[in-house]
Amino acid sequence: MIKTIEWTDEGVRMIDQRLLPTEEKYLMLRSFEEVAEAIKDMAVRGAPAIGVSAAMGIALGTKQAVGTSVNDLQEDFDYICNVMSQTRPTAVNLFWAIERMRAAFQKAMIETKDVEEIKQRLVEEARKIFDEDLASNRAIGRFGGELIPDGATVLTHCNAGALATAGDYGTALGVIRGARDAGKRIAVIADETRPFLQGSRLTAWELAQDSIPVTIITDNMAGHVMKQGKVDAIVVGADRIAANGDTANKIGTYMVAVLAREHRIPFYVAAPISTIDLNLSSGDEIPIEERGHREVTHIRDQRLAPEGIEVHNPAFDVTPNEFIHAIITDKGVARAPYIQTLRLLSRV
Amino acid sequence: MIKTIEWTDEGVRMIDQRLLPTEEKYLMLRSFEEVAEAIKDMAVRGAPAIGVSAAMGIALGTKQAVGTSVNDLQEDFDYICNVMSQTRPTAVNLFWAIERMRAAFQKAMIETKDVEEIKQRLVEEARKIFDEDLASNRAIGRFGGELIPDGATVLTHCNAGALATAGDYGTALGVIRGARDAGKRIAVIADETRPFLQGSRLTAWELAQDSIPVTIITDNMAGHVMKQGKVDAIVVGADRIAANGDTANKIGTYMVAVLAREHRIPFYVAAPISTIDLNLSSGDEIPIEERGHREVTHIRDQRLAPEGIEVHNPAFDVTPNEFIHAIITDKGVARAPYIQTLRLLSRV
Repeated sequence: MIKTIEWTDEGVRMIDQRLLPTEEKYLMLRSFEEVAEAIKDMAVRGAPAIGVSAAMGIALGTKQAVGTSVNDLQEDFDYICNVMSQTRPTAVNLFWAIERMRAAFQKAMIETKDVEEIKQRLVEEARKIFDEDLASNRAIGRFGGELIPDGATVLTHCNAGALATAGDYGTALGVIRGARDAGKRIAVIADETRPFLQGSRLTAWELAQDSIPVTIITDNMAGHVMKQGKVDAIVVGADRIAANGDTANKIGTYMVAVLAREHRIPFYVAAPISTIDLNLSSGDEIPIEERGHREVTHIRDQRLAPEGIEVHNPAFDVTPNEFIHAIITDKGVARAPYIQTLRLLSRV
Repeated sequence: MIKTIEWTDEGVRMIDQRLLPTEEKYLMLRSFEEVAEAIKDMAVRGAPAIGVSAAMGIALGTKQAVGTSVNDLQEDFDYICNVMSQTRPTAVNLFWAIERMRAAFQKAMIETKDVEEIKQRLVEEARKIFDEDLASNRAIGRFGGELIPDGATVLTHCNAGALATAGDYGTALGVIRGARDAGKRIAVIADETRPFLQGSRLTAWELAQDSIPVTIITDNMAGHVMKQGKVDAIVVGADRIAANGDTANKIGTYMVAVLAREHRIPFYVAAPISTIDLNLSSGDEIPIEERGHREVTHIRDQRLAPEGIEVHNPAFDVTPNEFIHAIITDKGVARAPYIQTLRLLSRV
């Protein structure tokens, strides 16, 4: 089992996703600032993994707070939550996890004035978020696995696997693992997913570890393989889903969705309920992170483009709900009209 | 002016496109085998540039033939043409150029039995193909430039510029230069074009040299920028166009065409008449080259994917004619039904 993130007595341990697949190295993050930096610099990425990491970072930072009064603790806690909220703007799981930690803090404050007890409660809440994430991925795998036919080749974009979550199953790859664990033979085509190459570096790595057959292609080959009839279904993850089902996910997902419709291939989104943001009526309201240009112009130290040119590097795009056959959540499978079904599932 | 390929007394001189944009280095190829290797290994690439290079390689090899009889020369010539024809399968300009050289050889053989004279005629034919390529790109620029509105942002895929031709104008970038030279303000968005990165390495480099504003994006951002209304027109080159207008071009072109139709953006193909293969009734008959997997799994020496996984690396895809608004040739602009218009233009 791939352990993406772990709570330990020393700090938050995570696999450094910037180095995969050539190096399998684990970071031990000993302060909340180190956790925030790991999120910002994409040592850890993937919406659910960002949520779990943020929760653990908040628990870690609060645990290390030196004040002895509840008021001091409150101040430190607010500061830590604020730092954590500035790391990345698009994945709503980050803000969802911060809200969960805030609610746990409020509840603890009502029930006790013991600073150590409050700190302990926050650690417990972070570990609970971790456990819930693993369980929700298993549920996504069960629900989604039923939608994938035996013998199917599934195309996926980016990495919505164990490495994008607390570990183990993942969301989109959870669906693939769910189908496999239900006895179906599944093959995967993974878009390499420029610029960060989550597909070739991470998805290929974790599927190979799991002995699931995987073929990598460059992103611009997706249309060609669909036209050749090589793709039976598409499953991707999500960074934020608006109330109407519009889905922000890794840049290029929209392109895959348009191509899927052109070729009449079912296009599924797999994500835990915590990825749904009912506060946003449509995808137009989802903030899209623009990341550094060096991600596009370089691979590690290798320059790929001339100096002095313009670069555009949006990290995400929005796929309108009409392109999505179903949204596979840990509470069940939502289908259009999403404005109703997502609200219903969120209440389960 | 960018000089992609040049005939010199020493041999065929060409810019090494594998090293751009970080190194501007020129190769001096002193044998036909070196020219064939440069084509195969993509030191030179782009359908018209491959055609010109092959013609010069054949002229060079024949010039160096040591036999003194016309029969010896014929044997060497056939061997050289055969080696050249094995370099790359998709771009029809290669086979077109070989046929041109064969026809020139036959004509010379009828008119003279002087081996040196025949050799000289082949050098002249190769130089004529070179000159015609430059002129045809200028014509493409004039015809195509009229289709691009003032102030337009044009998206292009791969490199169909000076570097894809004998030099100077290029085909798709010829259209952009034609519009610019007609006094229009034009900006370009260049897909980086994995795996070989012709967009970020070559198109960005040559447009920057020419002071045409260029922004690079990863291939999977094309849909997003179209959805945002940032693209007014799309112009790409071609490696082979079937009689019905179906167009083989760099992998990813088909994806761009599907996205263009989704966003009602005009999609143009720019290519000289020599790229049209009237022998093929549809794009299904165009052979698609599968290139080495290392192009996808590595950038130079940097490994991007785990070992032991499958890779698919088709170098081209086929865009069906119904996605193409117009095919801009050196003889004029063809529009649907291409089965008629391409045949007519080919006779001009």
